[in-house]
Amino acid sequence: MIPTLTWTPEGVRFLDQTKLPLEESYVLATTYEQVADVIVTMVVRGAPAIGVSAAYGVALGAKQTKAKTAEQFAPEFERICARLAATRPTAVNLFWAIDRMKALFAGLLAAGASLGQIQEKLLAEANAMYEEDIAACKAMGAFGAEFMPDDGGVLTHCNAGALASCGYGMALGVIRAAVERGKKIMVYADETRPFLQGSRLTAWELMADHIPTTVICDNMAASLMRQGRIQAVVVGADRIAANGDTANKIGTYNVAILAREHGIPFYVAAPWSSIDLATSTGDQIPIEERPAKEVTHHAGKQVTPDGVGIFNPAFDVTPAKYIAAIITERGVLRAPYAESLEVMDVRSRRLGFLEGQGDVGPEFFERLPEKVI
Amino acid sequence: MIPTLTWTPEGVRFLDQTKLPLEESYVLATTYEQVADVIVTMVVRGAPAIGVSAAYGVALGAKQTKAKTAEQFAPEFERICARLAATRPTAVNLFWAIDRMKALFAGLLAAGASLGQIQEKLLAEANAMYEEDIAACKAMGAFGAEFMPDDGGVLTHCNAGALASCGYGMALGVIRAAVERGKKIMVYADETRPFLQGSRLTAWELMADHIPTTVICDNMAASLMRQGRIQAVVVGADRIAANGDTANKIGTYNVAILAREHGIPFYVAAPWSSIDLATSTGDQIPIEERPAKEVTHHAGKQVTPDGVGIFNPAFDVTPAKYIAAIITERGVLRAPYAESLEVMDVRSRRLGFLEGQGDVGPEFFERLPEKVI
Repeated sequence: MIPTLTWTPEGVRFLDQTKLPLEESYVLATTYEQVADVIVTMVVRGAPAIGVSAAYGVALGAKQTKAKTAEQFAPEFERICARLAATRPTAVNLFWAIDRMKALFAGLLAAGASLGQIQEKLLAEANAMYEEDIAACKAMGAFGAEFMPDDGGVLTHCNAGALASCGYGMALGVIRAAVERGKKIMVYADETRPFLQGSRLTAWELMADHIPTTVICDNMAASLMRQGRIQAVVVGADRIAANGDTANKIGTYNVAILAREHGIPFYVAAPWSSIDLATSTGDQIPIEERPAKEVTHHAGKQVTPDGVGIFNPAFDVTPAKYIAAIITERGVLRAPYAESLEVMDVRSRRLGFLEGQGDVGPEFFERLPEKVI
Repeated sequence: MIPTLTWTPEGVRFLDQTKLPLEESYVLATTYEQVADVIVTMVVRGAPAIGVSAAYGVALGAKQTKAKTAEQFAPEFERICARLAATRPTAVNLFWAIDRMKALFAGLLAAGASLGQIQEKLLAEANAMYEEDIAACKAMGAFGAEFMPDDGGVLTHCNAGALASCGYGMALGVIRAAVERGKKIMVYADETRPFLQGSRLTAWELMADHIPTTVICDNMAASLMRQGRIQAVVVGADRIAANGDTANKIGTYNVAILAREHGIPFYVAAPWSSIDLATSTGDQIPIEERPAKEVTHHAGKQVTPDGVGIFNPAFDVTPAKYIAAIITERGVLRAPYAESLEVMDVRSRRLGFLEGQGDVGPEFFERLPEKVI
């Protein structure tokens, strides 16, 4: 298992994704402020991974408080949550994780729990989210594997892999599950400018698993599709709106259009924590703009002339109409997504699906009357 | 005028495009072999520029021969042409230029010209091609300016500019002409991985002309289009088949699909020397594959894990159906291109248009009964 993030007695240990693939080094965040920093600087990245990282950040902040009582800690808890929430705006998993920690804290506070109990429960909740995330990835893999070709090429963009989650991955989890079931897949990894999550991270983790991988520049995808070398596209998501519009790494929307033009199915694999039913369409998803230097410099060397304008949004929104299916740990959703997302939400609530129960995974989902909506 | 390539008494002087934009340095090719090398290493690149470079390479080879007579020189002339033709396979301008030099040589040889006369005429022909290229760019600008928005964004890919020609440029010539006519244009330059012709070269030459320019990663184009910030796309061409299918820098086909999906016109600006009526469709255009290192390394630093597969085609083919118009120095062509290209070819032959007459340019084209076919 790739140790993307790990709780330790000293703090949260992160595999430094800015140094991969040439260097496998770790950053130990010993304070919640340092956890916030590693999220901002993309030492850790990927929607599910930053969600769980933030949860651990909250647990770490609680552990280190100098407050003597739960009531005394309450305003500090708010500041910790606010700091972690202010790191990156697009992936909804971050806010989902922090809200879940907040709800737990409020409940414990109302129940008169001691500070020690609160510290213990917050850490247990972060640990549960970590385990749930891996189980959710495995479930996505189990649901999604059937959509992968038996013998063919699969294009992915950015890294929705073990490195973007607590392990196994979303889009790459679907690919892993397909390979585990005996499918022969050549993965084409978009290098994913400007941060190169594809050439650096996706290539690194797939090669570690001996899954054949070819890196291409983002602008080569249409050529490959036209040559018949891509049978499916699978990507992750940073936030899925109630109508199915999906925010994901910049360039995903390009790929979705190209896939449609070539009649290739385009799949999104994401845990339910990436779904934001409170956001009605993709137009309302805030899109982070990253520093110009990510575009102007390559390996520290300037490549653009001084003074030129730079546009560097970190994400784009793929309208729901381009998406063949959304693969979640609760099952596979089909268009119209406004309906299928709502049905899945209602159904899973009725079946007692609540986060924190720890019973996620394929076995749980077998209880759903229809896996595909 | 940007000195992309210049004939000097010592040889051909090239602005080193691998060093731009941070360093403005020159490479002096003193032998035809060195001219071939600068084409292979992309010190000079761009279809029209490599065509004229090859012509100068032939003239240089003729100048330096140790042969005593024209007949003695003939087999060496063939070797010079073969060496220069073996540099890059996709841009047809290279073969067009060499064929033109060959035809001239054959005629002079048949007419009993002396070696001295041949040397002189070959250089004069290369000089004529240089002047014609600039005139052709100006004519493309004059024809194409009207298709640019009065006030809006224009996306271009790679560098079909002064640096890709003897001056003024094809796609960027159209933009320059529009700006000279008072249009307010923000140019969005795709950085154009892996060689970064957009962020390095297009940005550099447009900023030198004070034309507002914003560099984007190739995967950001669809986002901009969806936001309504792009009113037109204009690119160059390395080879246009008889049916209008257009080979151009890798990623052009992606942009063409994205433009069509957003209802944005996609224009190709290219001199007639990029048109290859002997190649019936884009499927027959040879596509150069470049070294993997262009993808695996950034500024000399490896970014991909060892052993990963790499796909690095230098060009792709945009099917004619995506092209709103082909802007040439002879006029503007519309679909169906198989017909309009043939009509333009026949008409310009009838009007006495022959390369080497030196009478190209907007004035000449005024004589064409209809500028737009």
